[in-house]
Amino acid sequence: MPRLEEDDETLRRLEKLGNQVVEMIQEGENPYIERPVRSRSNVEFDSEKGLLDLGDSKSKRYFMNIGHARKFMQTMLVASKCKELIEEERTASIRELYYQLKHTIPGLDENTLEDQDESNPVIVDLETALDSLREHLHLIAEPKGRLFGPITIEDEGDEINCLKLGKSGLGVPSMVDDYKFVEHSADYVLVVETSAMAARLVEEDFHKKENAIIVSAGGQPSRGVRRLTNILHKRLDLPVYVFTDGDPYGYYIYSVLTAGSMNLAFESNRLATPEANLIGMTMSDIEEYGLENVTEKLKGKHPDESGGPTKDYKRAMDMMDYEWFQHEEWQEELQTMMERGERVEQQALATNNLQFVAETYLPEKIEKGEHLP
Amino acid sequence: MPRLEEDDETLRRLEKLGNQVVEMIQEGENPYIERPVRSRSNVEFDSEKGLLDLGDSKSKRYFMNIGHARKFMQTMLVASKCKELIEEERTASIRELYYQLKHTIPGLDENTLEDQDESNPVIVDLETALDSLREHLHLIAEPKGRLFGPITIEDEGDEINCLKLGKSGLGVPSMVDDYKFVEHSADYVLVVETSAMAARLVEEDFHKKENAIIVSAGGQPSRGVRRLTNILHKRLDLPVYVFTDGDPYGYYIYSVLTAGSMNLAFESNRLATPEANLIGMTMSDIEEYGLENVTEKLKGKHPDESGGPTKDYKRAMDMMDYEWFQHEEWQEELQTMMERGERVEQQALATNNLQFVAETYLPEKIEKGEHLP
Repeated sequence: MPRLEEDDETLRRLEKLGNQVVEMIQEGENPYIERPVRSRSNVEFDSEKGLLDLGDSKSKRYFMNIGHARKFMQTMLVASKCKELIEEERTASIRELYYQLKHTIPGLDENTLEDQDESNPVIVDLETALDSLREHLHLIAEPKGRLFGPITIEDEGDEINCLKLGKSGLGVPSMVDDYKFVEHSADYVLVVETSAMAARLVEEDFHKKENAIIVSAGGQPSRGVRRLTNILHKRLDLPVYVFTDGDPYGYYIYSVLTAGSMNLAFESNRLATPEANLIGMTMSDIEEYGLENVTEKLKGKHPDESGGPTKDYKRAMDMMDYEWFQHEEWQEELQTMMERGERVEQQALATNNLQFVAETYLPEKIEKGEHLP
Repeated sequence: MPRLEEDDETLRRLEKLGNQVVEMIQEGENPYIERPVRSRSNVEFDSEKGLLDLGDSKSKRYFMNIGHARKFMQTMLVASKCKELIEEERTASIRELYYQLKHTIPGLDENTLEDQDESNPVIVDLETALDSLREHLHLIAEPKGRLFGPITIEDEGDEINCLKLGKSGLGVPSMVDDYKFVEHSADYVLVVETSAMAARLVEEDFHKKENAIIVSAGGQPSRGVRRLTNILHKRLDLPVYVFTDGDPYGYYIYSVLTAGSMNLAFESNRLATPEANLIGMTMSDIEEYGLENVTEKLKGKHPDESGGPTKDYKRAMDMMDYEWFQHEEWQEELQTMMERGERVEQQALATNNLQFVAETYLPEKIEKGEHLP
């Protein structure tokens, strides 16, 4: 892959980490690596930025500590391999990284790594220690998602006009940082939860008629889709609408896209888009668009039932407590959902006719500015 | 979407089905729909064609039968809606179809459909009754998979040069029957189990250097990937190599691609590619390429253990009985796997170096013609 803008900076940080350890050894100190604490206690919502972030707690991992030594060694191995990847202008999947580093330590009956459950957390340690994104370390995740719409992207030297990809669309790779947005005539970005709904919109030429970049997530958005949404918004200053099922799972997808996730709080800044709005489905859509006969029941137990709340109700209750859902509209939305005990899917809009979502529902909502914050 | 070549034929079959029912009613007969039995007892391996197929058993569904009436009504509804879709040149997801057909029957306190578990089997009934593919009824499934390589595809009027799509690639849609292969310079098709391995090969420019069309399945291949493999082979007369993990799950993927699946036996002819060969990973790769330290243990219990075989061992044993795995090489392969109790992943090839799979492993195997039948 081509060099990323961030490559020099990432190399500099990796070298600094290594040099610090060397210095400590030369000065006869017990070498350590410092990184932010990632437990929930150190995850905060930054209300100014509108996203989750790590607090100031740090912890040190020492080489000369029997409980730390193995992880210290693994962190050095991963750091060294990532440096090599950047220098070679290659990427590796986290599975490949594991296989690349797994070997028996000479003179010892011990492996560097026993399984990938050992290397994965070390990668996260390194990301946080360096305040760097996994992709900037040239590590890639499973790709998922597709893109359609009036934008030309340069990827690996190829200029791709995403309006000329039929109903197939562009596969969103794991790594999008190196994408160059050559030109576009889009009015906004629409992130769609289900692939089938994205296919519907493409069949109706929604992307062409409405000048919309459609990003199809295919369920919970991949890192690639989250980062792509972030850079489409930041670099092109385009509004972002998120279109999910009207249920706790769909709203959680929106929550992750807008504010980030607890587990990856240190990456929200690069993976989340706080300015994104939810365009639908909402509980008020049910009456508004005559969907009373095509709702589904929420799963699990209502908080008033014994043993409740569970499943959908539990997730809805949890979300009501999120700081970024403290808007009146969101509280009402979640409250109504639990009272009705109902969910409504994107594809339920097909009950009227197939083109309804593309010709009426979305254009009306976007024109009227009807969306949740 | 544009009209399919098969559209006229599918419409003719739908009309014939409808006319037969009308005639039976006019003649005072109890109307019925006849379709092949789909239970395992009627699934056969056609050794000449090299794929699974349905046998000759048929069954009739009568309108005037209290056990059949509801399903008869649903079959008519689905048939009528599919006719409408074809005429409108639209497709629908099976979820949309469900929402389109769900309504309360006038004068009765009864819904046409209660949930999608009712409409899905009816779709299969219709496919078999008409000897038609779901996609020919304009019904689409969840898309998954990507394509890279030296081929230009016309999709919805757009000519897409798949060698010019960077590392992103073309999203494989659910419906590929309408793809036109404009030109190509490929020597073969390589279907790859994991997305990460496909990303590796693309990063190494394997598709360019080896003139290979890479189809990335992303796990169990979608209907789109299966059909695409089938038409790439049939229309372009290209050899197909399948590259999976060396484990029962990977070999099952190969099995489905080559011979079809029990559940969809009636569609093997259109979804399977009996001439496809497995290029790897194989048990002999472990010694051949020095992978002894990067194998994993099979899951479950060996047949010799009490309560065995389970999980991986069970699947391997089942496959040993498949008629299309009665080649000596396959029997040996599965036998060796169970004896070793080991599996080996595609990505384990990274233990040497990242480019090894692209520069050495695959080219050597293809040149030597080393593959399983």
